[in-house]
Amino acid sequence: MNAEAADCIFCKIIAGEIPSTKVSEDEDTYVFMDINPGTRGHALVIPKRHTTDLTTIGPADLTSVVLKAQEIAKRALSSLPADGVNLINCCGAAAWQTVFHFHLHVVPRYAEDGLAVPWKPGQGGDAEVIAAAAEALRG
Amino acid sequence: MNAEAADCIFCKIIAGEIPSTKVSEDEDTYVFMDINPGTRGHALVIPKRHTTDLTTIGPADLTSVVLKAQEIAKRALSSLPADGVNLINCCGAAAWQTVFHFHLHVVPRYAEDGLAVPWKPGQGGDAEVIAAAAEALRG
Ligand SMILES: [Zn+2]
Ligand SMILES: [Zn+2]
Repeated sequence: MNAEAADCIFCKIIAGEIPSTKVSEDEDTYVFMDINPGTRGHALVIPKRHTTDLTTIGPADLTSVVLKAQEIAKRALSSLPADGVNLINCCGAAAWQTVFHFHLHVVPRYAEDGLAVPWKPGQGGDAEVIAAAAEALRG
Repeated sequence: MNAEAADCIFCKIIAGEIPSTKVSEDEDTYVFMDINPGTRGHALVIPKRHTTDLTTIGPADLTSVVLKAQEIAKRALSSLPADGVNLINCCGAAAWQTVFHFHLHVVPRYAEDGLAVPWKPGQGGDAEVIAAAAEALRG
């Protein structure tokens, strides 16, 4: 375990050193309730292997996490029941990441929950800016 | 092609019947720029096979899409360059889905972009509500 993992609150949750409201657990993933839920049923899916964020998680763990999140999302729709669901990953402090162990938010949504789309459509620039950004993303 | 796919704007984009600013394309996925970007470099990753949303996409396509999104996110960080990145999936109208062909938003983030977290922490209920929701999610 490296220094970052030794200090990681989510690694401590997985190890049972910090309590959590666990939803499920398998060989590769751990699912538990967000302690400050944005909506009823807000859960987090994390890989058991410590990894900082979307830039460091390996393909096998990323796959396990997203397939588990899909399963939890379906259960949110059928069992809470929710009207919709968002999956959200925050990579980096500038993207609201506060715990630096990769996690995927599963946020059940309800018709009247009042959440606002985080972005204002069109603020990312006009056609010229879009074309230049696309060129950058093509690498 | 079923009736839903025949009418689908994203299927038309993949087929080249509607123009898009393409970033990349492989056997299973298509990546293009959001026409109303929330931030500079806002892109969408979609499976080529039509599927409505997170409840209907198969595991192989979901895996291909998320691994491609990770690749695009890394490129956003290195090439735009962005300071962070969000991956966001909207499943259902109640979760802001407006085009009913599964898509994963890759939203590059910048230190001063002014986007607000979509939820207010804690609005999802107290310890009792959280425990009941966890029980529902356990299925
Ligand atoms: Zn950790
Ligand atoms: Zn389609």
